Amino acid sequence: MREELMGSDFQSWVTAQQARCEDVLHELLPRAEVSPQRLHEAMRYAVLQGGKRVRPLLVFAAGELTGADAARLNIAAAAVELIHAYSLVHDDMPCMDNDVLRRGKPTCHVQYDEATALLVGDSLQTLAFQLLANHRLNDDPQHQLDMIKLLALASGSRGMAGGQAIDLASVGKSLSLPELEFMHIHKTGALIRAAVLLGAHCGSIFPAKPDFAEKPESATQRDKLDRFGKLIGLAFQVVDDVLDCEADTATLGKTAGKDANNGKPTYVTLLGLSAARNMAEQLHHEALELLVEFGQSAQRLRELADFIILRKF
Amino acid sequence: MREELMGSDFQSWVTAQQARCEDVLHELLPRAEVSPQRLHEAMRYAVLQGGKRVRPLLVFAAGELTGADAARLNIAAAAVELIHAYSLVHDDMPCMDNDVLRRGKPTCHVQYDEATALLVGDSLQTLAFQLLANHRLNDDPQHQLDMIKLLALASGSRGMAGGQAIDLASVGKSLSLPELEFMHIHKTGALIRAAVLLGAHCGSIFPAKPDFAEKPESATQRDKLDRFGKLIGLAFQVVDDVLDCEADTATLGKTAGKDANNGKPTYVTLLGLSAARNMAEQLHHEALELLVEFGQSAQRLRELADFIILRKF
Repeated sequence: MREELMGSDFQSWVTAQQARCEDVLHELLPRAEVSPQRLHEAMRYAVLQGGKRVRPLLVFAAGELTGADAARLNIAAAAVELIHAYSLVHDDMPCMDNDVLRRGKPTCHVQYDEATALLVGDSLQTLAFQLLANHRLNDDPQHQLDMIKLLALASGSRGMAGGQAIDLASVGKSLSLPELEFMHIHKTGALIRAAVLLGAHCGSIFPAKPDFAEKPESATQRDKLDRFGKLIGLAFQVVDDVLDCEADTATLGKTAGKDANNGKPTYVTLLGLSAARNMAEQLHHEALELLVEFGQSAQRLRELADFIILRKF
Repeated sequence: MREELMGSDFQSWVTAQQARCEDVLHELLPRAEVSPQRLHEAMRYAVLQGGKRVRPLLVFAAGELTGADAARLNIAAAAVELIHAYSLVHDDMPCMDNDVLRRGKPTCHVQYDEATALLVGDSLQTLAFQLLANHRLNDDPQHQLDMIKLLALASGSRGMAGGQAIDLASVGKSLSLPELEFMHIHKTGALIRAAVLLGAHCGSIFPAKPDFAEKPESATQRDKLDRFGKLIGLAFQVVDDVLDCEADTATLGKTAGKDANNGKPTYVTLLGLSAARNMAEQLHHEALELLVEFGQSAQRLRELADFIILRKF
């Protein structure tokens, strides 16, 4: 990460949390010696030693709002990252985006084979739900069931996977701005929102009630956090489109300009580079406004929002 | 179903439960009008109007052992069937078994396209866990978390998906009988066991304790049911291999003799047809022994075991 974007304290925090995330995933993924070895090795290949771990960082930061226990946050962070990792493995496959490079390494189906990549994605998704069911995440088990439902809704056909379907259907079509936003709110945004909410729900700010029927004041706080997650999720994608347009393959570790070349609509193709940058700034501003009432406990979330929107890669 | 294999009472029960399962899935799957429409339409195509619904039948029958509530059993049955359906959609894809026909209909990737089939499988899996988290399955939410864990373990890399990986790795290899059994216990058996246990756990025979730490007597009963599920799961596969060898494409609705032709080891190629039939009979006998102490409440499970092992298609 680039120092000019972050205070050294935040930079140290990010580095420490990324290492923490790596340790947790290393521990929770099945060992490569356990049968079926090739599948487990490929699962580890697809997840470990890669990525900025933005979603786990959001889980950890949101946990600071609610005084959440570190061990609980570890599980929630791992589950969200496993869902993200499964989606990348499947999205990279030939029948989807047909990408051969991810995070500077051969994609899972290139390093192994397509059938293995398919099973890797399937098994990573299952593992995410297994972790959420198998570890204590909240004092109230009913609240924990609601957290599982939250992740499922964010991941499934009305969340991330649905966004991917809309994305596929949009290739070569001209989308309106609301249509593009609808796609990204699902494809990328849903899981980012879920990361923020799951982190917060590991703590105690939100009383444990079925269907998240919290006390009015914490319901309002929850809504603000939810909207914060939505805004930075959208901003994340806008920045991604801007960077995709600007960057070259070497810097990004993936084939740059690929979406635009594939005829996929992006914020840049729709708005132009300058207006897309402005949109990201506006989303950034609105997101920070929502955190005001949380005071100092939201400092990491603020810094993460800055990072997500001001990043250069 | 063939009348000579079943009493008319059991036959009526099966027909009624299959219709019940269809209704429940119809209700729980996202409607095809909901965005993303094509994905939701394809999810419904892959799940509805097809299959013997063996796993839901097991859920319903096992629920009778423990006086489980019908609405709870509906959710458990749907979740197990969604996991099964997702695995079929992914297994049929070109990079796996490359099947074009399933239950007499074009497979999902043929009817739609590969990318959609990939997302259909992913989303069906997510929906299974969403249902288990979103509906009341047990009076004790902690017990419900344990049930989610049970399904996840049965489905993931150390269950069904792991069995599929072992299956892929075994093509063209000569497996020993224990190796073949190890594969099938994972690939098919794990989910069948889970169906039996989930059905029973919707009821009250097993006291709700974390990690299934039941009273000794019900732990014994649970172990027996678990072993029953394991034996009929294995028998199911042996019978499948026998039928696959005997049947022709028209009767089975899938390409007959395909596994043997692909160089995949089967019980028939390993043992011969006659010994494979004997093995199924022996497993059948052992499975029924385990149900003796449950008395009349296990009647449907007994009849299902008969059906699974004596079926001709």
